Amino acid sequence: MTQKLTIALDAMGGDHGPTVTVPAALDSVEADPRLHLILVGDEAILRQHLGEAATRYGDRLVIRHASEVVEMHELPSKALRNKKDSSMRVAINLVKEGVASACVSAGNTGALMAIGKFVLKTIPGIDRPAIIAILPNKQGGHVHMLDLGANIDCTAEHLFQFAVMAYELVRAVEDKDQPRVGLLNIGEEEIKGNEQVKQAARLLADSHLNFTGFVEGNDIFSGEVDIVVTDGFVGNVALKTLEGMAKMLSQSLKDEFGRNLFTKLAGLIALPVLKAFKNRFDPRNYNGASLIGLRGIVIKSHGNADRHSFGNAIQIGVKEVEKAVVSRIGERVENIFAERKSA
Amino acid sequence: MTQKLTIALDAMGGDHGPTVTVPAALDSVEADPRLHLILVGDEAILRQHLGEAATRYGDRLVIRHASEVVEMHELPSKALRNKKDSSMRVAINLVKEGVASACVSAGNTGALMAIGKFVLKTIPGIDRPAIIAILPNKQGGHVHMLDLGANIDCTAEHLFQFAVMAYELVRAVEDKDQPRVGLLNIGEEEIKGNEQVKQAARLLADSHLNFTGFVEGNDIFSGEVDIVVTDGFVGNVALKTLEGMAKMLSQSLKDEFGRNLFTKLAGLIALPVLKAFKNRFDPRNYNGASLIGLRGIVIKSHGNADRHSFGNAIQIGVKEVEKAVVSRIGERVENIFAERKSA
Repeated sequence: MTQKLTIALDAMGGDHGPTVTVPAALDSVEADPRLHLILVGDEAILRQHLGEAATRYGDRLVIRHASEVVEMHELPSKALRNKKDSSMRVAINLVKEGVASACVSAGNTGALMAIGKFVLKTIPGIDRPAIIAILPNKQGGHVHMLDLGANIDCTAEHLFQFAVMAYELVRAVEDKDQPRVGLLNIGEEEIKGNEQVKQAARLLADSHLNFTGFVEGNDIFSGEVDIVVTDGFVGNVALKTLEGMAKMLSQSLKDEFGRNLFTKLAGLIALPVLKAFKNRFDPRNYNGASLIGLRGIVIKSHGNADRHSFGNAIQIGVKEVEKAVVSRIGERVENIFAERKSA
Repeated sequence: MTQKLTIALDAMGGDHGPTVTVPAALDSVEADPRLHLILVGDEAILRQHLGEAATRYGDRLVIRHASEVVEMHELPSKALRNKKDSSMRVAINLVKEGVASACVSAGNTGALMAIGKFVLKTIPGIDRPAIIAILPNKQGGHVHMLDLGANIDCTAEHLFQFAVMAYELVRAVEDKDQPRVGLLNIGEEEIKGNEQVKQAARLLADSHLNFTGFVEGNDIFSGEVDIVVTDGFVGNVALKTLEGMAKMLSQSLKDEFGRNLFTKLAGLIALPVLKAFKNRFDPRNYNGASLIGLRGIVIKSHGNADRHSFGNAIQIGVKEVEKAVVSRIGERVENIFAERKSA
């Protein structure tokens, strides 16, 4: 008998709501026969989007009604206080109650983190949960980076805890025994980093982690590290800057090939190559960031994710459930605390 | 009579030294008949690189001997203390003495800033010089961004001063009357930015600058701002991250087109289009950052700049000399101080 693998989806979240989440859910249950999904949101609307597929998968695809929706630009504190029956809140509740093993939402990041912290609580020993995501590297592999925006001002201890959490996550989901951890910094030798970064480097060097030292922005993609640690301000800016550049380049490539008949023809001939190129770096294949440090698995999808991207976020949730990421992090943190006390 | 336009080049600086700086200098004097260049460095070596061109341009291309070289990874404080006859130091001295109107170096950034501050001093009213460079945007224009690594921990006042300097620079070199200034921040509504950023936003909103508010990483390329202000840690990480990604994408595009006979053929056909694309975003066309806030024009070229890139950095120097950027910034800062005192 296969183990039951249940994920709750905030089916109303994101820029596109059920027009994306429902087709992605159908793709996912179709592709993975072990998977059970709970679509959380307005029952009438979800039923309409499901159409005749509503009963096709029996108890593997069910609806859980929730009467409210957290808006994309709603203040997290307001969403937390006022929307106790939102699709986001109910999806997280299902994780808390053990009905689902993870939840996935394309909704408001701040609200997801606030509700996640309130409902699920933080892993004992972890001061602040963080946001971690995957980026491609130039060796055809990938790199995990955190924090991507949950925590603006971070102490050395926070950065250290981020590294500890990421280390266990990567050990679990990548089956790497000693993932290489880099601490993001800038290159000037003399003034190398601010106080937090310098101190965090000392904590990391003294720890059980495979700390390879400071890395600069261009090293993120080098393939020389598996984990890049930074504070949420820097991480968020770096990630968004990359997104902006990727969009600009992709638009410009389209423009250049669309310029005239000759360039269009050239584009047609080069299409398979360009597709292979695009596929390798397609952000849709990297969609799905984890809110790491919570006592439950919460995956944040990009707000404007499409069907394929949202499906990718669901897969990331599946993997973290299978690899029991949260309990692994919990055990590791407990050990570190025990060692610190005995030291 | 045309005005004399003299620029001192640290001819020994950078990863490639005179093999790059000398050919770039020759290109530059050839292309711009107003331009006078002083090649600073080991006379014998430079004479050898110049060959028969040594006398071709008369007093428009001369050598100024300097016996030492600042190494790329030398500590700035050591370079400042111990290398008083380095090509970098002598080039900056020439600006101080009024012999040259600007200097250009591909050498050690930290040393360049340290020596620049020591020799030239900072513009009165400016606490800290910053590094500003140009990036392309998706509207086919470009955007100026600072600080790119000179200052790690910045107060709101520092960020404000960066904006004031950049505003005058862009007004001068772009002939834009009211360039739009954005302050880099992250998107979470509730916790929008750290204290420095929030306070800097208030200072900017109350100033004479055309402050358009907060921007996120992806807005850098949107074309909606002409200037992006941030601290040196964030700016440096963002810039290097972009560099790393650009390198990865360009390598991957090469790989994909080199895969087999068909893809090579497709690459050949698409070559003109790919070249147009590459040209538009070629970092070589954006090489040359200004050490803004010094009482003299100092341009930092990328350390591994090639002949074309280094030539671009020289052109940026020429433009700043022509537009009298330093005195414009000085006057503006003086006005602001006068206003503050009278307020």
